[in-house]
Amino acid sequence: MNSLRPVLLTADAFAPFGEVIQCEGARHFPINAGTTERYHDLAKIAPGEGGRAIVSIFRGQPRSFPLTIAMMERHPLGSQAFVPMQKRDYLVVVAHSLADSKEPGIVQAFIARGDQGVNYAPGVWHHPLIAVGEVSDFLVVDRQGEGHNCDEFSLAEPLLLEYAG
Amino acid sequence: MNSLRPVLLTADAFAPFGEVIQCEGARHFPINAGTTERYHDLAKIAPGEGGRAIVSIFRGQPRSFPLTIAMMERHPLGSQAFVPMQKRDYLVVVAHSLADSKEPGIVQAFIARGDQGVNYAPGVWHHPLIAVGEVSDFLVVDRQGEGHNCDEFSLAEPLLLEYAG
Repeated sequence: MNSLRPVLLTADAFAPFGEVIQCEGARHFPINAGTTERYHDLAKIAPGEGGRAIVSIFRGQPRSFPLTIAMMERHPLGSQAFVPMQKRDYLVVVAHSLADSKEPGIVQAFIARGDQGVNYAPGVWHHPLIAVGEVSDFLVVDRQGEGHNCDEFSLAEPLLLEYAG
Repeated sequence: MNSLRPVLLTADAFAPFGEVIQCEGARHFPINAGTTERYHDLAKIAPGEGGRAIVSIFRGQPRSFPLTIAMMERHPLGSQAFVPMQKRDYLVVVAHSLADSKEPGIVQAFIARGDQGVNYAPGVWHHPLIAVGEVSDFLVVDRQGEGHNCDEFSLAEPLLLEYAG
């Protein structure tokens, strides 16, 4: 099996897939008489036509590594954001995604810091949540609404995600 | 000054003001081949007519206690949710709120655990973010859009919020 080696998550590297939800590099301004800094509007939350944005908590079991990446999924109708709730690192696996293609392109992996969320743009192929180390909670902002909003794809050639923690 | 003593946050006690975003008591189901549990649709995210839901990070300076509560604010057009990103406790101060009243009613204070978020329903009077102990980040889901969406009110009789940490 080919290896998949994660690299550190940055806004630029993740741009083809969506946004990194982080303070770094974001527009910000003081509010509440200077007691709070607001890092404003950090992701393109897109519940899509006829959908609405909802919040849920995903409680992920920690994975063992190396982890076989054998499938990917995508949500064609809406974005999906993950934000860690206990500042614990996690892994993100995405694939280049063309709207008119039924399958994922080149797969990439990222190490997300515990203070970084990610927002997958609608239709972006990604692997389900990969928590690391301990059971981890994530706030998820995604779409509720009518319509078929989940495709799955089995990789013809699974990859082996390496991570030392 | 009258004292304001916070009590532990529960969904029932907070119901007049909005929702507690937490796993406890929520509808949930396994996803991702059982590696993740989804606690589903935990708050009434309400960006309102002509608004859209956005995500931001609020970085709050820790407060000193006792803290004088001298003003409250409300967002008449949309809900506003706060979810801690580092599992650190914080305080929530709200007031009973009638849509046709221009001022807050009885003020109540809650101690929110680090794994509990809150969502203020549209029009609910609340005090700005009260972080505790250290600089704390919160994911905020609120409204972007046209219209006047923030009222402030100075309390005729400020309260002294007590908290030992």
